[in-house]
Amino acid sequence: MQHFITTDDLSLTATKTLIQRAQAMATTPADFQSLAKHRQLATLFFEPSTRTRLSFTSAMHGLGGTVLGFESSSSTSTAKGETLIDTIRVVSQYVDIIALRHPQTGAAALAAKYASVPVINAGDGCHLHPTQTLADLTTIDQFKHRLDHLTIAFAGDLKYGRTVHSLVQALMRYGQNRFIFISHPALKIPVTLRAQLTAQHIDFEEISNFDDCPDVLDVLYMTRVQAERFETATDYDAVKNAIQLTPAQSRFLTPETLLLHPLPRGQELPTCFDTWPQAHYFDQVKAGRFVRMALIEYLLTHNH
Amino acid sequence: MQHFITTDDLSLTATKTLIQRAQAMATTPADFQSLAKHRQLATLFFEPSTRTRLSFTSAMHGLGGTVLGFESSSSTSTAKGETLIDTIRVVSQYVDIIALRHPQTGAAALAAKYASVPVINAGDGCHLHPTQTLADLTTIDQFKHRLDHLTIAFAGDLKYGRTVHSLVQALMRYGQNRFIFISHPALKIPVTLRAQLTAQHIDFEEISNFDDCPDVLDVLYMTRVQAERFETATDYDAVKNAIQLTPAQSRFLTPETLLLHPLPRGQELPTCFDTWPQAHYFDQVKAGRFVRMALIEYLLTHNH
Amino acid sequence: MQHFITTDDLSLTATKTLIQRAQAMATTPADFQSLAKHRQLATLFFEPSTRTRLSFTSAMHGLGGTVLGFESSSSTSTAKGETLIDTIRVVSQYVDIIALRHPQTGAAALAAKYASVPVINAGDGCHLHPTQTLADLTTIDQFKHRLDHLTIAFAGDLKYGRTVHSLVQALMRYGQNRFIFISHPALKIPVTLRAQLTAQHIDFEEISNFDDCPDVLDVLYMTRVQAERFETATDYDAVKNAIQLTPAQSRFLTPETLLLHPLPRGQELPTCFDTWPQAHYFDQVKAGRFVRMALIEYLLTHNH
Repeated sequence: MQHFITTDDLSLTATKTLIQRAQAMATTPADFQSLAKHRQLATLFFEPSTRTRLSFTSAMHGLGGTVLGFESSSSTSTAKGETLIDTIRVVSQYVDIIALRHPQTGAAALAAKYASVPVINAGDGCHLHPTQTLADLTTIDQFKHRLDHLTIAFAGDLKYGRTVHSLVQALMRYGQNRFIFISHPALKIPVTLRAQLTAQHIDFEEISNFDDCPDVLDVLYMTRVQAERFETATDYDAVKNAIQLTPAQSRFLTPETLLLHPLPRGQELPTCFDTWPQAHYFDQVKAGRFVRMALIEYLLTHNH
Repeated sequence: MQHFITTDDLSLTATKTLIQRAQAMATTPADFQSLAKHRQLATLFFEPSTRTRLSFTSAMHGLGGTVLGFESSSSTSTAKGETLIDTIRVVSQYVDIIALRHPQTGAAALAAKYASVPVINAGDGCHLHPTQTLADLTTIDQFKHRLDHLTIAFAGDLKYGRTVHSLVQALMRYGQNRFIFISHPALKIPVTLRAQLTAQHIDFEEISNFDDCPDVLDVLYMTRVQAERFETATDYDAVKNAIQLTPAQSRFLTPETLLLHPLPRGQELPTCFDTWPQAHYFDQVKAGRFVRMALIEYLLTHNH
Repeated sequence: MQHFITTDDLSLTATKTLIQRAQAMATTPADFQSLAKHRQLATLFFEPSTRTRLSFTSAMHGLGGTVLGFESSSSTSTAKGETLIDTIRVVSQYVDIIALRHPQTGAAALAAKYASVPVINAGDGCHLHPTQTLADLTTIDQFKHRLDHLTIAFAGDLKYGRTVHSLVQALMRYGQNRFIFISHPALKIPVTLRAQLTAQHIDFEEISNFDDCPDVLDVLYMTRVQAERFETATDYDAVKNAIQLTPAQSRFLTPETLLLHPLPRGQELPTCFDTWPQAHYFDQVKAGRFVRMALIEYLLTHNH
């Protein structure tokens, strides 16, 4: 049984095919609208994530399939003490494919072990969010027509931001990408990620503000500092406004730079940028829907 | 892009066409069950309203379309600080049409400004609830075969009841309608509405109990006094039972009078009336479903 | 109008037909996937029950129909004081069939009285849960090829466990079944059920542990002790671990014994049994989905 728990579950070739399929779906959606007819997707969201849940739902509907599930764990059988394993085995009897969101690291991998249908990781705690990474890759490929030889800056919360970690790891698989990490010193990338980059001799540097950005960028990927990741409000307040993009501080944005953000955003990305030609964060949302369509089709097809 | 934020967004002619379309749909629903096939509706309910949400969902299903959304703001990205504008721009990437319920006045108009798909106002705070008005108009037209030359009484909470304000304003657009407002003195119609009626030389009077009702009625439209609109329980208790229809006090009901209520009801409309031939409040519910079907079809058709 | 409020609402013949239909649906689901096309099911869950709600939803989707509803009463009009009767009359205007879960005994019967579409009881308080019983009967029939001449033990919470009461009453309608009740003395079957068994001269005995089990079993039906049924934590703690199946204490399980559990489970049924050939509790889940499909089809067909 093939699942999608991390981006590594798809080879570079399969990823490329999936991205192209997503772009074809976005171009002529009517050609794909019955691919999952009479198939059912369960969206099991043990923690709320409206955007991701609606994206998966819209994707399944776009393939002609149906969706059932829950939005948070408060009203589920887990409240009655049921284990994740039992829930997954039960829901496997109801549907053809499962999208699982869970607050615990490793939950999706555990679920995949016991499910009798394909499982998609829709986010497990601070750990992974691989379909967001697929959305990011699809957007970059759509506008830059390549996933290698890119100078990519990440700005914001690089310590807890799982979308950053996932996307960096995915882009490390392609050749000659160069990374610039821009964050408050308290929110730098984890040591494990730094070690991976070093071990693979990948060019990267870490700076603490936009002024030190050494070069023009192909991609600027911004993220929000999430209050819920901090132990105290004081810790959060100390760093929350450290990074904010301003028109005055944006000389590294060329007309061809992609300005991306996984959303929702905070003050780090003011709405004044929304009308800039570089702003592609709503295109990311669209790409997310279509690459989830392509992923659902892939898993339904490769498991039968 | 055409939206439906207030009843004024449709001309009298377009409203008439919509009402007739809704009545045709109610008569032969099978003729319309694939009109929105492969189309998606988002029901974005930032405050709960089960009845309205289910009505929109049933309407979209009745056209062969699919539905996604949320039931309350507690589990949405707004809890993470996302603005309504960003939510609308995101959801515009997922669906073909949006029904928005929001606690703030003007939210639906703001959403329409940023949406790339049609927006239907499913209620914005105490302000407007225009699809309820369409349901009311459709019911009156269905049983009285006209929307003019009517004597219509409104009873209950005329101060905060947005369904009353909307329906009065809609009926003012038709000729020779006469209004009787029956309420506790603390719950009379707002001064702005009174000023509009006076400015347009429309015949109306305000009384405080059913005994003073001067005439037989074509329509009696009752509303519930809503506890949540009052600042203190004392304020609410003082007025909540001021208006109650009783069989003894109902000489203004002829066999042809329509007894309407937007529901849910309180003690103001006892269940003993449910078997009276005048009772049409469950027909209003049915009309609401079909006129929402007609509205969805109209907006999907007129925007492509 | 035919409803399904208790298992007695179906004759033995109709039940048998339904079970066979469910088994046919499980075998060739594609033959049934458009039976309820353009039909709508409302899942009105006034108390949460994710498993049951998802089962009904999956069943309706499996017939090609659509689903709408709510997951708990917190966000419904009942919070605005609406009666169940009004809710049912309103929702009858939206859908073709209703599945109702409600915390109060008798709620489903009351709903059926006022609904203009068929009502299925999806559980009313501690009282009934008849579609679980249909799932249990379907599973027993599937693997034992009969519903009579069975030795069936029930273990766990026999006092509050409504699935036990419903299944015992259903199996009493078939000939020559023999019951063994295994529970802590504080959780024995209710006196009313004992009186029914005695009045009908049905062979049964009550014991307090697995060691006293007098014979090998055709079926062992286990249930969880539910904390929420007890007035104090002390009362619950005193009995919660009284019954636990262990491999050492399982000589009454033959290779042909069915080990069943309505789930979710607690410690009474350790996961080590999941790989035993006797374990059929996930087959019960599957049977539940398909017998609900058959029931929905039956009620839609027999009411038109």
